[in-house]
Amino acid sequence: MIWAQKTLKLKTFSRGIRLITREIQAALPEIGQIESGMLNIFLQHTSASITINENADPDVQKDMNMALDRIAPESFPYEHTLEGRDDMPAHVKSSIVGSSINIPIVAGQLALGTWQGIYLCEHRNSAHARTIILSAFGKKMSQSG
Amino acid sequence: MIWAQKTLKLKTFSRGIRLITREIQAALPEIGQIESGMLNIFLQHTSASITINENADPDVQKDMNMALDRIAPESFPYEHTLEGRDDMPAHVKSSIVGSSINIPIVAGQLALGTWQGIYLCEHRNSAHARTIILSAFGKKMSQSG
Amino acid sequence: MIWAQKTLKLKTFSRGIRLITREIQAALPEIGQIESGMLNIFLQHTSASITINENADPDVQKDMNMALDRIAPESFPYEHTLEGRDDMPAHVKSSIVGSSINIPIVAGQLALGTWQGIYLCEHRNSAHARTIILSAFGKKMSQSG
Repeated sequence: MIWAQKTLKLKTFSRGIRLITREIQAALPEIGQIESGMLNIFLQHTSASITINENADPDVQKDMNMALDRIAPESFPYEHTLEGRDDMPAHVKSSIVGSSINIPIVAGQLALGTWQGIYLCEHRNSAHARTIILSAFGKKMSQSG
Repeated sequence: MIWAQKTLKLKTFSRGIRLITREIQAALPEIGQIESGMLNIFLQHTSASITINENADPDVQKDMNMALDRIAPESFPYEHTLEGRDDMPAHVKSSIVGSSINIPIVAGQLALGTWQGIYLCEHRNSAHARTIILSAFGKKMSQSG
Repeated sequence: MIWAQKTLKLKTFSRGIRLITREIQAALPEIGQIESGMLNIFLQHTSASITINENADPDVQKDMNMALDRIAPESFPYEHTLEGRDDMPAHVKSSIVGSSINIPIVAGQLALGTWQGIYLCEHRNSAHARTIILSAFGKKMSQSG
């Protein structure tokens, strides 16, 4: 049984969606030692989110951002507006997209499908420093000669 | 390795959002014995949901409820209406917000960010009794003198 | 400690929602050997999703599909349209509904509530072959005579 945890500070960026698959894989080399297990990615914030989506066409990331803006628009009659008009919609997007995701580990690799990548969705207009906690656990690979 | 599970019946309340972080922490003291691990919170219902969001300003909870009502309004042309006009929108919110969430445990504590709290979102108008299953697992803290 | 993983190819079907609880239970009999643990269901695709919702009335599945179509309609001004007008809304639905879900295992059974079933939501118009990875892990049931 392996239990590995790491706190990862992501590069700051402003409103939009960014692929972070490689940063996550690089941050936790213990994934390579797990025969079957699980990776949890946990975002410690309430105005950004973590999800899995298409990893190839940058237009998908732009369209995703636009669609979320239409699903939870700034025009809703919010009362919590002291931190800016983009703050409350960011909280709503955080709950509908989510801030915690689990990906199976199979034979030392994240078992992502061909087109799957891990997205950090920044919902605030201005750049924010975001922290994630990575937890990988599972059965250790057997050593063979 | 620790595996702890507990069924927790929450206090009933009607449509709206309520912070349940403390009830969860109090219900599963085994969290304090886990050096690195995971807590899963699983809601056994399909017309309420569990999420993580801002823990400080009660207006955020009111605004979240209002925003979800606009994203999945009662005015959609639903066919499943026998249980009331609030029932089918509740099912939709349950799937877009979610009913299962994972939070890492680090050094005997839930690794929530400063502003993160755990929300129970009740999507039905009338008060309902809701049950959650808490599962905490991970590496046991080493005893040191 | 048990760690069981299995890749499951689901029957193809076109846009709509289908209950897959029984297929999942049948695919991983190891669930029955776990006293307390967790099942993760991971969908390796970005234009379908996995969720838990009402397992009894087929109208709920139709209404859920209709509601998701209204929440993320084809009429949004998407740029990623080469794969069809239904493709980008499918990506959005995949992120708001989700592609990874965790269900606790208690005494050899999935701890689903009375009304909970597992849904595969196919968001593309045409039938697609979808693959899920099932991972069950937890404390082994003690043998007693």
